[in-house]
Amino acid sequence: MSVSEFEIINRYFACHSFASENIILGIGDDAAVVSVAADKQLVVSIDTLISGVHFPVQTSAADIAWKALAVNLSDLAAMGASPAWFTLALSLPQVDHNWLAAFSESLADISSAYHIPLIGGDTTRGPLSITIQVAGHVKAGQALLRSGAKVGDQIFVSGSIGDAALGLYLLQQQAENLGEKDYLRRDLIRRLNRPQPRIELGQALSGIASACIDISDGLFADLAHILKTSKVGARLQQAQIPLSEAAQQFLTANPQLRSTIYNRGDDYELCFCVPAEKCGQLEMIEKAQYCRLSHIGEIVSGDDLQLFDVQNNRLDYRHDSYDHFAKKT
Amino acid sequence: MSVSEFEIINRYFACHSFASENIILGIGDDAAVVSVAADKQLVVSIDTLISGVHFPVQTSAADIAWKALAVNLSDLAAMGASPAWFTLALSLPQVDHNWLAAFSESLADISSAYHIPLIGGDTTRGPLSITIQVAGHVKAGQALLRSGAKVGDQIFVSGSIGDAALGLYLLQQQAENLGEKDYLRRDLIRRLNRPQPRIELGQALSGIASACIDISDGLFADLAHILKTSKVGARLQQAQIPLSEAAQQFLTANPQLRSTIYNRGDDYELCFCVPAEKCGQLEMIEKAQYCRLSHIGEIVSGDDLQLFDVQNNRLDYRHDSYDHFAKKT
Repeated sequence: MSVSEFEIINRYFACHSFASENIILGIGDDAAVVSVAADKQLVVSIDTLISGVHFPVQTSAADIAWKALAVNLSDLAAMGASPAWFTLALSLPQVDHNWLAAFSESLADISSAYHIPLIGGDTTRGPLSITIQVAGHVKAGQALLRSGAKVGDQIFVSGSIGDAALGLYLLQQQAENLGEKDYLRRDLIRRLNRPQPRIELGQALSGIASACIDISDGLFADLAHILKTSKVGARLQQAQIPLSEAAQQFLTANPQLRSTIYNRGDDYELCFCVPAEKCGQLEMIEKAQYCRLSHIGEIVSGDDLQLFDVQNNRLDYRHDSYDHFAKKT
Repeated sequence: MSVSEFEIINRYFACHSFASENIILGIGDDAAVVSVAADKQLVVSIDTLISGVHFPVQTSAADIAWKALAVNLSDLAAMGASPAWFTLALSLPQVDHNWLAAFSESLADISSAYHIPLIGGDTTRGPLSITIQVAGHVKAGQALLRSGAKVGDQIFVSGSIGDAALGLYLLQQQAENLGEKDYLRRDLIRRLNRPQPRIELGQALSGIASACIDISDGLFADLAHILKTSKVGARLQQAQIPLSEAAQQFLTANPQLRSTIYNRGDDYELCFCVPAEKCGQLEMIEKAQYCRLSHIGEIVSGDDLQLFDVQNNRLDYRHDSYDHFAKKT
């Protein structure tokens, strides 16, 4: 059966374009038309996921769709923005209706969960690749930036760090056929495939955090972006970096993987800095969000990231976070 | 030498982010921040170009960059929008500094020519693919749509039709090593590789055209989108479809290619409908734009597209425009 790109868009994606007061015109014309309220600014980010690079080739269509939108929403979270709309550029090697149905359904799940309609897209034949651009709203001048960290600010992360990296390790060890008792390992792989962008936390941090970033490349690499942009250094306490129960158990059995969890990405937690006098406000946010916020260190003068153990010995962890071009060139 | 994705962005693309009153924050944070004036709406479109699908694999980096932004600008032109900003997702098989320098320079050329700054992007390792999302401004409620054509409206196209399709034919015949006397053929290939989006024309048509589309898939296929969305039919006069001198000469020698020029895309001219009482305004626009506007037919009741010769015989041309998935599935 011959299926055109227009049929693919109509059958699988036009239904995602639900009503929203800011969407004047959605899918179906040369372009979409949106409005932005007079007291708001638009926050815009674009990310591509490529099969075999950003997710293992065996990743399911449903997981790919979820992750493709989630990693973009995470950028909005890091800016303190509320989701507004997104566009999708999907490149497919062939038309596989089972794959498209699963991808479309999962994309609808996450787009409705985060109240973000699809307003336009492009479907092309090519190697499997998903590019999403998201837009969100912030009050004018209120976007959380990387550049505001000051000496004396305290450093926090949400949730737990390293689960996704360990999940990827498990998949690479071809450990995906897990028994029922491996629920902790399942949790790690789920963290890799189904990241939960911290949208509400990001919005709650607006006016409180001095700098914020989402952890996509690894805790150290992403905190280093804040340090470079803000022209400061950081002291981190290793023992305070929050690990999930699954990660703790896994590291007990595999201690050689400890540096992996700090230097690999895909956590999509927020790492943020808060001036000392505002730290008291975090307790309320933590309760309202049902989300652990861990104090992991503080901003200092200088330009480097220092890690210490409980005896205050400085530890040496290489900043070998994931970088697409650094590996083979 | 190891080159990170951050270095690629800094070295080749950060320089494209020139100042604009609507850009609050450009490249360098989790996301960009932009503003939209209170009386404006934002027009948004996304398009992917894949090597071997949207351009021949031998296409130069400079031509690829130009075309990738031009085809997106053409969507803004079709909506009557003025360019505001764009984002770039670039997937590269390896770091090739000569390629990147040429790509970057050409992208800077077209972005400054059309006053549209790059505000964010993503660089990944993968098969060569370029996804660009553009945004433009229209006065609130003034976007040109596909849906407004009415029976009795007159149908026009800008410029000339079919040059890019003939240019692609020439390349596919491996006729790219052309002698100096082949300047007409060079023109055809240039139309394929360096489309000129009709931004100013689109803006001038706001308030005049009842419906508008840009010709990316072929004159017939794209006009058919207007007909379907507006629920009308069309009668076209073949002799009035404008051809360049190069295309006319080429068709004289290769008459079997005539249907190709109506059914293949990449012209990036505008096809638009104008109510009879407003057609008089087109003469002024034509002069101001230095751009030929050709009257090719009229909107009629029904739902089909009919083509006639000068003796008013109905001609049969298949609507076999380019569709990415229709060919092999």
